[in-house]
Amino acid sequence: MISTDLLKFFRVKPGSRVRLEDFDPGWEQTDELARLGKESVKQRAEGLLEACVAELTQAQELLYADNRHAVLVILQGMDAAGKDGTIKKVMSGLNPQGCQVYSFKAPSDEELDHTFLWRCVCRMPERGRIGIFNRSYYEDVLIARVHPELLGTHLPPGKRGKSFWKGRMDDINALEDHLVRNGTVVVKFFLHISKDEQQRRFLDRLNQPEKHWKFNPGDLKERGYWDDYVDAYEKALTATSTKHAPWYVIPANHKWVAHAVVASILSTTIDEMKLEFPQVTPEQKQGLEAARTQLESE
Amino acid sequence: MISTDLLKFFRVKPGSRVRLEDFDPGWEQTDELARLGKESVKQRAEGLLEACVAELTQAQELLYADNRHAVLVILQGMDAAGKDGTIKKVMSGLNPQGCQVYSFKAPSDEELDHTFLWRCVCRMPERGRIGIFNRSYYEDVLIARVHPELLGTHLPPGKRGKSFWKGRMDDINALEDHLVRNGTVVVKFFLHISKDEQQRRFLDRLNQPEKHWKFNPGDLKERGYWDDYVDAYEKALTATSTKHAPWYVIPANHKWVAHAVVASILSTTIDEMKLEFPQVTPEQKQGLEAARTQLESE
Repeated sequence: MISTDLLKFFRVKPGSRVRLEDFDPGWEQTDELARLGKESVKQRAEGLLEACVAELTQAQELLYADNRHAVLVILQGMDAAGKDGTIKKVMSGLNPQGCQVYSFKAPSDEELDHTFLWRCVCRMPERGRIGIFNRSYYEDVLIARVHPELLGTHLPPGKRGKSFWKGRMDDINALEDHLVRNGTVVVKFFLHISKDEQQRRFLDRLNQPEKHWKFNPGDLKERGYWDDYVDAYEKALTATSTKHAPWYVIPANHKWVAHAVVASILSTTIDEMKLEFPQVTPEQKQGLEAARTQLESE
Repeated sequence: MISTDLLKFFRVKPGSRVRLEDFDPGWEQTDELARLGKESVKQRAEGLLEACVAELTQAQELLYADNRHAVLVILQGMDAAGKDGTIKKVMSGLNPQGCQVYSFKAPSDEELDHTFLWRCVCRMPERGRIGIFNRSYYEDVLIARVHPELLGTHLPPGKRGKSFWKGRMDDINALEDHLVRNGTVVVKFFLHISKDEQQRRFLDRLNQPEKHWKFNPGDLKERGYWDDYVDAYEKALTATSTKHAPWYVIPANHKWVAHAVVASILSTTIDEMKLEFPQVTPEQKQGLEAARTQLESE
């Protein structure tokens, strides 16, 4: 598990104004790791990931037994930032009975006929479970902000200016407040890659036939809006990193670093909830003893 | 349609402190109606209901064609206040394709494993439709406040005092703000009956075998908590009657009055939205003309 200090290092301080250029997507050093060679950093990170996933597995079991809290994990990032890979690497050890992943794609007609939060709210994790949103309602202040024509003609008339987007951020903060008040822990990760790293990953997909299915020509078009996305992300992270539902900016140029850091933050977060296995009351204990007696005398 | 003045007469002014004793559940008079005899008041009200339902039917068609707004109608009231009857009388003329009714009973285990708003949010009406909630998330600040043991052991620990209930009211207001901002019109009716009238209706159910199915011995137990419910309703109406999502206190001792007033308020509310049938663009008109030409030349 990483220390609370390191956790703070990645957290967007509530109320602070986010500039993504202040965060290094290629980060892979702690003072301790710096003393090792490059290969060792990777080995070290993989060892850390393994340890964190083991911790997370235990934490999930406790969450399930305690049955008073849910954990909502939101994953956002540019195309090819490694959202799918992070889910695969970090969550693969978990018991699927206590873990639900939803990937939000372009909304359906039915979903567009509701408010932008609706489809995500319907898929919120139940108590005792970890719910992972691969993209989320944040797309409605990201891609929708970069391409306001996606807002369509269904919304009530009015300007789509600053106060429109502020309204959406307020709605998101109110929803997350509500979740937290009612026992859902909300953890939000922005997987931060550089524009160069995205180029490398796209070319990698194009050069390897078995990765062709992951390449979508539309992704290249979106790459043209890189700066607009950076701007939209900075505004969203600034407005919605709260004490109760913080954003973490995860250095994601190195996949092994991203996975280890995400797993660490998650297990630390659940650990800080101080969950305990439910206590058995004296009456329940008597009942258990009676059951044992009956079974033994059969 | 009733006048905007009469509409204001029933509306809980945002920010005002509600005392239910200030509202007469037996109200059946307007200056105009007062000049007629009792039988005529009923006839007049039934005529008004018929006219309002006709207006509401037209309004619903427009809502469906316009497809940018939904209407959420919340019905609350003491047992036997006439919620089912109001839905039957007021909504029966509507096209069921554009109208959805949900009756919220005691929550299921799955529902209890989510936040108290969840089950209602999942059933929100889509754009173009009227959604009617027979009871709603308001039960979570009404019956749950009268019987806090219903909160169960699932919630995070903490006091269930004033600030707990204020948190729930804040969550409700934030949800309704979000709905309104995204095109849902929210109208909330409290069907107000007197304690004597409830007694009469319960006895009526007991005296008529064909109404026995409507009587639940548990209702009598809840009647014992009448004053606690009044207190909980006053607090909820005070905290959640907002400019955008107002509460109306409907005099409901006389069923015909309640039905006419609810239908009037609903059709007035939709009328005030100033909806219009979608305009056909010149391009669309050309397309229609081309279709006509092709069909005629077959």
